Amino acid sequence: MADNLIAPSILSADFARLGEEVDNVLKAGADIVHFDVMDNHFVPNLTIGPLVCEALRKHGVTAPIDVHLMVNPVDRIIPDFAKAGATYITFHPEASLHIDRTLQMIKDLGCKAGLTFNPATPLHYLDHVMDKLDMILLMSVNPGFGGQSFIPSTLDKLRLVRKRIDESGFNIRLEVDGGVNAANIREIKAAGADTFVAGSAIFGKPDYKAVIDEMRAEMAKA
Amino acid sequence: MADNLIAPSILSADFARLGEEVDNVLKAGADIVHFDVMDNHFVPNLTIGPLVCEALRKHGVTAPIDVHLMVNPVDRIIPDFAKAGATYITFHPEASLHIDRTLQMIKDLGCKAGLTFNPATPLHYLDHVMDKLDMILLMSVNPGFGGQSFIPSTLDKLRLVRKRIDESGFNIRLEVDGGVNAANIREIKAAGADTFVAGSAIFGKPDYKAVIDEMRAEMAKA
Amino acid sequence: MADNLIAPSILSADFARLGEEVDNVLKAGADIVHFDVMDNHFVPNLTIGPLVCEALRKHGVTAPIDVHLMVNPVDRIIPDFAKAGATYITFHPEASLHIDRTLQMIKDLGCKAGLTFNPATPLHYLDHVMDKLDMILLMSVNPGFGGQSFIPSTLDKLRLVRKRIDESGFNIRLEVDGGVNAANIREIKAAGADTFVAGSAIFGKPDYKAVIDEMRAEMAKA
Amino acid sequence: MADNLIAPSILSADFARLGEEVDNVLKAGADIVHFDVMDNHFVPNLTIGPLVCEALRKHGVTAPIDVHLMVNPVDRIIPDFAKAGATYITFHPEASLHIDRTLQMIKDLGCKAGLTFNPATPLHYLDHVMDKLDMILLMSVNPGFGGQSFIPSTLDKLRLVRKRIDESGFNIRLEVDGGVNAANIREIKAAGADTFVAGSAIFGKPDYKAVIDEMRAEMAKA
Amino acid sequence: MADNLIAPSILSADFARLGEEVDNVLKAGADIVHFDVMDNHFVPNLTIGPLVCEALRKHGVTAPIDVHLMVNPVDRIIPDFAKAGATYITFHPEASLHIDRTLQMIKDLGCKAGLTFNPATPLHYLDHVMDKLDMILLMSVNPGFGGQSFIPSTLDKLRLVRKRIDESGFNIRLEVDGGVNAANIREIKAAGADTFVAGSAIFGKPDYKAVIDEMRAEMAKA
Amino acid sequence: MADNLIAPSILSADFARLGEEVDNVLKAGADIVHFDVMDNHFVPNLTIGPLVCEALRKHGVTAPIDVHLMVNPVDRIIPDFAKAGATYITFHPEASLHIDRTLQMIKDLGCKAGLTFNPATPLHYLDHVMDKLDMILLMSVNPGFGGQSFIPSTLDKLRLVRKRIDESGFNIRLEVDGGVNAANIREIKAAGADTFVAGSAIFGKPDYKAVIDEMRAEMAKA
Repeated sequence: MADNLIAPSILSADFARLGEEVDNVLKAGADIVHFDVMDNHFVPNLTIGPLVCEALRKHGVTAPIDVHLMVNPVDRIIPDFAKAGATYITFHPEASLHIDRTLQMIKDLGCKAGLTFNPATPLHYLDHVMDKLDMILLMSVNPGFGGQSFIPSTLDKLRLVRKRIDESGFNIRLEVDGGVNAANIREIKAAGADTFVAGSAIFGKPDYKAVIDEMRAEMAKA
Repeated sequence: MADNLIAPSILSADFARLGEEVDNVLKAGADIVHFDVMDNHFVPNLTIGPLVCEALRKHGVTAPIDVHLMVNPVDRIIPDFAKAGATYITFHPEASLHIDRTLQMIKDLGCKAGLTFNPATPLHYLDHVMDKLDMILLMSVNPGFGGQSFIPSTLDKLRLVRKRIDESGFNIRLEVDGGVNAANIREIKAAGADTFVAGSAIFGKPDYKAVIDEMRAEMAKA
Repeated sequence: MADNLIAPSILSADFARLGEEVDNVLKAGADIVHFDVMDNHFVPNLTIGPLVCEALRKHGVTAPIDVHLMVNPVDRIIPDFAKAGATYITFHPEASLHIDRTLQMIKDLGCKAGLTFNPATPLHYLDHVMDKLDMILLMSVNPGFGGQSFIPSTLDKLRLVRKRIDESGFNIRLEVDGGVNAANIREIKAAGADTFVAGSAIFGKPDYKAVIDEMRAEMAKA
Repeated sequence: MADNLIAPSILSADFARLGEEVDNVLKAGADIVHFDVMDNHFVPNLTIGPLVCEALRKHGVTAPIDVHLMVNPVDRIIPDFAKAGATYITFHPEASLHIDRTLQMIKDLGCKAGLTFNPATPLHYLDHVMDKLDMILLMSVNPGFGGQSFIPSTLDKLRLVRKRIDESGFNIRLEVDGGVNAANIREIKAAGADTFVAGSAIFGKPDYKAVIDEMRAEMAKA
Repeated sequence: MADNLIAPSILSADFARLGEEVDNVLKAGADIVHFDVMDNHFVPNLTIGPLVCEALRKHGVTAPIDVHLMVNPVDRIIPDFAKAGATYITFHPEASLHIDRTLQMIKDLGCKAGLTFNPATPLHYLDHVMDKLDMILLMSVNPGFGGQSFIPSTLDKLRLVRKRIDESGFNIRLEVDGGVNAANIREIKAAGADTFVAGSAIFGKPDYKAVIDEMRAEMAKA
Repeated sequence: MADNLIAPSILSADFARLGEEVDNVLKAGADIVHFDVMDNHFVPNLTIGPLVCEALRKHGVTAPIDVHLMVNPVDRIIPDFAKAGATYITFHPEASLHIDRTLQMIKDLGCKAGLTFNPATPLHYLDHVMDKLDMILLMSVNPGFGGQSFIPSTLDKLRLVRKRIDESGFNIRLEVDGGVNAANIREIKAAGADTFVAGSAIFGKPDYKAVIDEMRAEMAKA
């Protein structure tokens, strides 16, 4: 897999023709599909579930699907997403009383496992599970809606996590989600991220390839 | 509006090309779009939310959209669906402590309001709200999944509700959801239903028009 | 105790000088003090708790205090209100899994016990507890806020409860709360109520005695 | 199976030698073992779970085990009890949003299914599920503790349920639990019960056989 | 604003004449009004809500009102307190899944925002939000009741927070609440606090001014 | 009390003859009885409650009983266990909003108090309560079931806690629970534990004394 991944969030795509949207964004150079699951309990919004993920697989999507669970609790729905074709499954530490077990369950089902951190969530939840993580996702906005602005203090937090990952010696992706665009992706990459979720920045533009190319060009400068 | 309505449940449609699916089923003679919202709390599944409803409206769907909330609580998400273009919004009485207020809120937002009954839920929840209802939806399966079989005792329950509606003098639709197909729609109509949700019975077949025509032919015999 | 009781709801009083307000309204002819407890869970508002009730007793209020619990759960806070000087304690059946035990607990603590019904709540919760009730409170608005209008279908519901009480042979007060004022109290009494909560109708006016006198005059016509 | 069953509640047995206690009470003439499961959520107590049920089966108990779930929610733990050897599994309607599905699940797992009613719980929950019931359990005390007194109004409720069962034509046991003893079992049977839970009345006495014999003698007079 | 603020907690005031009590304590030299909100969920007590705050403003209180939310969840009620005239709004990190969003919401509504720490709550919740805080409140008793004794280990915790604030360079008040009185305020100030909540220590005494003067005299020695 | 304690978990004992099992394991050299309480909410299992603890005391067990609460919430049930004869009561920090108060309550009831950490739970919950702890229990499996394997990263976590305890100067037991057996007890002791829970490792073997002797022999080598 490439070192730096562009992960369009389908939260900003056209849900009336989602297969086509995903096809187009992948053809335009995106690497993985970011899939935002909200349950109206962990966040004040309800989006899409396992059936939609499965439909993308049946439609022919072979790229990795990166499922971000903004739901609480998480254990019951994880097998549904594994069966529906998820590649990564990340969840918030506040949403599981048994984080170690949940991570292990995701891996036992053949998926890659990750933890997601809200902007104010402290990093100590990483202390005893680095060996079980394939991905750490830092939210750079408060989840629940598309189209928000990047919270600047995320840059410091990214640097802290990058340091933890490097010191651990484990192979863990560092993803960032919220307000990422061509104008700020360079400093975000410089702070340590290697996987970049972008929603409205891509799907809100007419030419997906132009945006993604610009993002890559900016990243190359970091 | 026609006396008897066919309401395909998009739970069984192809979510990768949902706009097209809805267009096709409406062209094939369906009357309204049944929209199943599950939150992984009221039922053990999570499906689709307001953004998908809004996408259908932006796609050009003008038929009524009949939103069935299998969520708990309901009050926070109702304005989102009203804004997203819902026509009907029904909810389960177990999911609101203030049923009268929730019904009124739906109406104040310009939508039609209804109550949905699980197979075992008693009908007494109707006692003091008949004047606020535009629809009563009887589940003929336990909600959460598509593709289940019709529970026969629903026929008796339909007859009881039909009697209550007729005696009330109010103009209230009587909808049934779960395992409805061409083979049983005749007796379901005879028991008093006038709005028929069908998911896999329609979307699971290659020719939507053929199924819908057959359903209407069967209904005509009732 | 008088046959028909006026019960001003202190929800509409001036909380900066509550003792004085209660003194004044009692001097103006009110019979009992209606005390609205909301916890921001059963209803979307938070009002006043046991300490305020206790303060009224310490201030010298000797009239009955009629505590209406709009909280969930109820069992933990009931002893606090009993100790704080409550006379009646009513709760919503949806807020206790063990209604019989909760009613018995209230009585064991030396208070009078009642059930409160939201506008859409069916009356079947009365079926097996009539012998344990001192009061039945029908909400004629959806609880949570002052200043709402009386829901007309409450009149029919009052008639049904009046019939149940009369047939039971038990001595049970029938209270109504929400939008009661001098203009409608006559027909509310005619429908069977004997205890009348009024908030803004009394505390919103300059002369409490004039309002209460007018209410009594209207009741006398029923 | 005998027409009238004595069901000792092991809640009152000596948990340090439970196998022996159950052996003794069955030898003394008891018919089935009543197994009280409390989770500290549905009731304010926590008792025993599937491992204890399984231990009784491994110990050699072959009599029916009648598991009364005072837990909320119920669906996750039902398969554990089916696997642990439960014969009957009953639950409270307030503890399942999908009562029809829960009843069906119990039957699909090879057990007999029932609904349990708290003293104040109305009977309308029976309206649409009589065809799925093997047992109806009426609580004659508020559950949570042993050693309470029989609530007299249960007799009227038993008569109502007996009438419903007889009119339904289904083969449904009518069980009563709480404060049953030799002094009142006669009138309880006369009111329509056919299955009698007794805890302290049996296990609190030195001679189990004497108590059970006396109960049967009293029942014979009904 | 003065460097060191005395914040009487109205939890210990006479709720029957609250306006007068607040007037008196402010005239006696208090700086701000501490307003304890409990919902019977986050803590086992229910106190006062937005209507009481609003009543103080209408009564003419112009001093800052410092609202301490001991409620869960917090987001729904915050706008109510902003509208009711709150100056500060602090909440417990355990009571919001989206701490960054909640802090931002308070500020967007024109109030000052803070986090409150229970005695055992670790300080890591500060790690990523120092730039959004106007106040940090350390509980020196377990919240829920007035009249408890100061927990001595709070002094060490105060020193840790003082250090964090000073190092951050932000202008953040450090408040302490629970068991503060003239006998210990000197060492509490020495440990780094600058805002001192006192309930029974002030309202439990006949001469508010004497107590507050003594507190100031003691602080001056720190 | 001995320096190093063997604590058989009765979760793996024969619940049909629990008194005898406990007698035997104590005779075989065990030091304290580990009592696993699960409520089907904090963990997906329900085990045993206060009545079973009380039965062991009545049976004559005088050894310390070490109650591990895997329940949520904890405050209501703690007095029940204190009354039932518990010696130690430990709970998970995620299960109490008021950890300091819960610890104090346990001590006020005459028991020893402790905190239990799930494998992924960070240690910062210790920061402000070391002076209130008699025991720290590290889970080396995810709780809910017997018979799981020891998670190796627990060794590092044990070393961190051992260091904290030694630096604190307080007398606090360091217990480990999950997958402990004769083959790994040596390195677990070397990492700092002094109290060793073993369930299936002991009760799953025919000769309890042989296992316990072997464990002690292994520990002696550490």
